[in-house]
Amino acid sequence: MGERRRILPGEDIVYFGDTGRVPYGTRSRETLFTYAKEDIGVLERFGVKIVLAACGTVSSTVLDDVTGGAKEPVFGVVDAAVEAAIATGACRIGLIGTEATVASGAFEKKMRAKKADLQTMSVACPLLVPLVENGFIGEDSEITRLVCEKYLEPMRAFRPQTLILGCTHFPIMPDRIAEILPETVLIDPAKEAAGMVKKELTASGLCAAGGRMGETRYLVSDAPEKFAKNAWIFLGGDEEIRAEKVQQRE
Amino acid sequence: MGERRRILPGEDIVYFGDTGRVPYGTRSRETLFTYAKEDIGVLERFGVKIVLAACGTVSSTVLDDVTGGAKEPVFGVVDAAVEAAIATGACRIGLIGTEATVASGAFEKKMRAKKADLQTMSVACPLLVPLVENGFIGEDSEITRLVCEKYLEPMRAFRPQTLILGCTHFPIMPDRIAEILPETVLIDPAKEAAGMVKKELTASGLCAAGGRMGETRYLVSDAPEKFAKNAWIFLGGDEEIRAEKVQQRE
Repeated sequence: MGERRRILPGEDIVYFGDTGRVPYGTRSRETLFTYAKEDIGVLERFGVKIVLAACGTVSSTVLDDVTGGAKEPVFGVVDAAVEAAIATGACRIGLIGTEATVASGAFEKKMRAKKADLQTMSVACPLLVPLVENGFIGEDSEITRLVCEKYLEPMRAFRPQTLILGCTHFPIMPDRIAEILPETVLIDPAKEAAGMVKKELTASGLCAAGGRMGETRYLVSDAPEKFAKNAWIFLGGDEEIRAEKVQQRE
Repeated sequence: MGERRRILPGEDIVYFGDTGRVPYGTRSRETLFTYAKEDIGVLERFGVKIVLAACGTVSSTVLDDVTGGAKEPVFGVVDAAVEAAIATGACRIGLIGTEATVASGAFEKKMRAKKADLQTMSVACPLLVPLVENGFIGEDSEITRLVCEKYLEPMRAFRPQTLILGCTHFPIMPDRIAEILPETVLIDPAKEAAGMVKKELTASGLCAAGGRMGETRYLVSDAPEKFAKNAWIFLGGDEEIRAEKVQQRE
């Protein structure tokens, strides 16, 4: 979120976290479709002009099917990440993500469409999500180091020049990944996607007026107090977070 | 489930796993109340004569508030586990569970009501749930060993004679816990609660007719295929699992 705020300083941002039903990465396609549709519905009630699905799992599985019914343009993180990864000029690109993201093959398919002779490898790292959420993110966390080493063992053998961090949780601990793949360029899809949203707003003349500071509103589906307690992991420690609880279904 | 089947061989059992919304252990009380109510509603649609909330989180937080509206007797795992733990004669009893379970204080409160001078210690072990679900349960799992050691460090100093494994996921790996606390008696609440359900059925004359083998039906809220794939973790490998998807809300 901090990254999105820096890239889009003047825009009002409504952020919805489905904290009552996360994690998404292990759900089936059918359930993800229902959840994503309801999530976009929540944002539409707040009159948004554009939607960014910052979740790698939703972006790579059901987003294309869901957007048909949406009133406003909906972006995911796959296209922007793919573009950024290809732009690095790499011949070998890796992807780490949730089970659902890796099973979808969405990133590889779009990368190969742009560069047919590309070598790719995808590895599901499901345990990194709860590790981040439970605060095992410090440099001193031997456990996270071991989990990363185990998951990234095949990736180390593959030697990707570029690696897409395909889940929102992974860019929280780039150092743990960079230790294992020190020569690899790391791509944060949410950051790239925020840049794409900015371009889209500019192109369609929908940008907020210059010189103003945008406001941020945080919506959650579980208790707001719980969100505020964990928000620092994703948002850094410099903002006071006041979240509001919303119902998924009207 | 295997344990429950052995204790209640003649009963038809309807098992509902809210696979589209787990894990429960990090949710707020308010969300747990809604989910537990809907879960009992699902089971009621199948005409059950008694409900066992085998989930430590639901049992220790909202179950007493939810049961008021239920048509049939509803049991949780707390009372049975407390009875079994006290029956070991221990002076120091430990509890490990999810964040919500530990925060509730439900186990300690009920134990102290039975034995006022009891010493207790409770430790939340949230990461054990995803470790089990992601298959990090083998003897060779150095990662699970380290996580258990980290969580159980204060418990080792406390030296409990008896330890309640307050989350359904923990009895899956008793060896990892027994290595760290080799002299401690481990209590599996779901097993104790199945015994309590049997007593209740006997006392109220609701037992199934003798000599028959009960049937088991598995209901889930996410895709049944996904459940079938992971069911061996909880149910052992000797049964073919066919689950059916149900809607939480009618």
